Amino acid sequence: MNFLKATSVSPSGSTEDASTTFSGAIHEGWDIRGNANGGYLLAIAARAMQTACGRPDIATISAHFLAPGSPGPVDLETTIVKSGKRFATVTGSMSRDGKPLLQTVGAFTDHAQAAKSLTRVESVAPELPPIEDCIRIEGGDGFPPEAMNRVSLHLHPEDVFWVGEPSGNLVIRGWFDLLDNEPIDSIALLLGLDIFPPTAFPGKLPVSWVPTVEMTAHVRGRPAPGPLRCQFSTRFVSGGFLEEDGEIWDSTGTLVAQSRQLALVPRQDPS
Amino acid sequence: MNFLKATSVSPSGSTEDASTTFSGAIHEGWDIRGNANGGYLLAIAARAMQTACGRPDIATISAHFLAPGSPGPVDLETTIVKSGKRFATVTGSMSRDGKPLLQTVGAFTDHAQAAKSLTRVESVAPELPPIEDCIRIEGGDGFPPEAMNRVSLHLHPEDVFWVGEPSGNLVIRGWFDLLDNEPIDSIALLLGLDIFPPTAFPGKLPVSWVPTVEMTAHVRGRPAPGPLRCQFSTRFVSGGFLEEDGEIWDSTGTLVAQSRQLALVPRQDPS
Repeated sequence: MNFLKATSVSPSGSTEDASTTFSGAIHEGWDIRGNANGGYLLAIAARAMQTACGRPDIATISAHFLAPGSPGPVDLETTIVKSGKRFATVTGSMSRDGKPLLQTVGAFTDHAQAAKSLTRVESVAPELPPIEDCIRIEGGDGFPPEAMNRVSLHLHPEDVFWVGEPSGNLVIRGWFDLLDNEPIDSIALLLGLDIFPPTAFPGKLPVSWVPTVEMTAHVRGRPAPGPLRCQFSTRFVSGGFLEEDGEIWDSTGTLVAQSRQLALVPRQDPS
Repeated sequence: MNFLKATSVSPSGSTEDASTTFSGAIHEGWDIRGNANGGYLLAIAARAMQTACGRPDIATISAHFLAPGSPGPVDLETTIVKSGKRFATVTGSMSRDGKPLLQTVGAFTDHAQAAKSLTRVESVAPELPPIEDCIRIEGGDGFPPEAMNRVSLHLHPEDVFWVGEPSGNLVIRGWFDLLDNEPIDSIALLLGLDIFPPTAFPGKLPVSWVPTVEMTAHVRGRPAPGPLRCQFSTRFVSGGFLEEDGEIWDSTGTLVAQSRQLALVPRQDPS
């Protein structure tokens, strides 16, 4: 089952003029210790929002993660708040048995219709060795989790924290791709923005997990074919929170997506 | 009229178990060319969300800006999606005559209840001259706009782009405070995160405005008293968009808020 199928949703009714309900499912194998990866969960909701508004691409989407998602059916509801010339603004919710899992809001667009505009970049793409010199993450029963086998992830050798000594840096870099040349649309970018291990691990924070409260992703355009360069970094661990900033660059050296997560820093030491 | 009064809302009814309606107003004098500052608009919505859930502080809030707000009454509606131990997740909408102005989602908390947690900072507070060596922005009929007189804003002399030659950098730095020692709560931080001029101006982008599509703010804690150090920067102008990343640091040298906006880069040159 490829990513597109694993995130598919079916309309199940219209509750009001601007609202639509969908049925979907969290599929087996996309989890970390039984809880679905957040980017995968968000992608299911985004698929419903995209279907509801009929715009192919995400411009920006925000999600609040309210409960872990185990495999099984989910209910989705979307509401079109505004349908403008360039953007449709849509809210979404995912629940199971009436219990909320995810609350979202996003602006959808058609990046193919974007007019040529000013470009200025005050940054550079992440420095990564060629993919064949990076380390393929292979999942199993423990760590790395099995969800890693659903994608093609190759980490920068310096950031492979579970072999030898972690770098100590709150940074993780690598190549992301879907399997079997499945095309990467803006919804698949959401998966890329959340499928890497947390920066807390190479950064040697004394935590065993960093649950995400909220994640916002911006998509600047459709990626060119080929593996994507990704970088995640954290600058502030404070107040019981940390942020994780993500960037995805395509094979032409163009930034295609940015993200920021707010995650909790649990007090307990895993040891 | 201070900031607290200018953002006050009154409950006007409950539509369902978890939803509440409020009446509020966009007050005169908080606008840029007739349209209310986005941080001010968001603060009105946040006040309703805060009142609805009864938690004093913002952890994270996202807003989609759907139409400019001129002075006058507005209708607000909030819905509590989840009320958990640490966070209440609330959605909000602001409209006038049924036309949506703002759509929001946020997680509210009580930062005073936060347990002591790990702190690690891989960054430094913005370098600013003492406030008396910075340039107070005073508003008028043209530029800077009158809204600047509602707050105390002192810009880094290098970033005062309308006197002499702009720096050319997509960076703007300065001190933010409310007037008359009004205390700064987490809702007032939203104003600080959006009241500075856009980075596009010192950065010499050929644009006269950069309308915000979406803004997300994270609040790490309550600021200590005193003027706040603020910095805004842009790294990517591409795909018809730019992001603007904000940081606010308090007088003890602690980061209290982060923000990221996605703004449009209009094609037209103002000349």
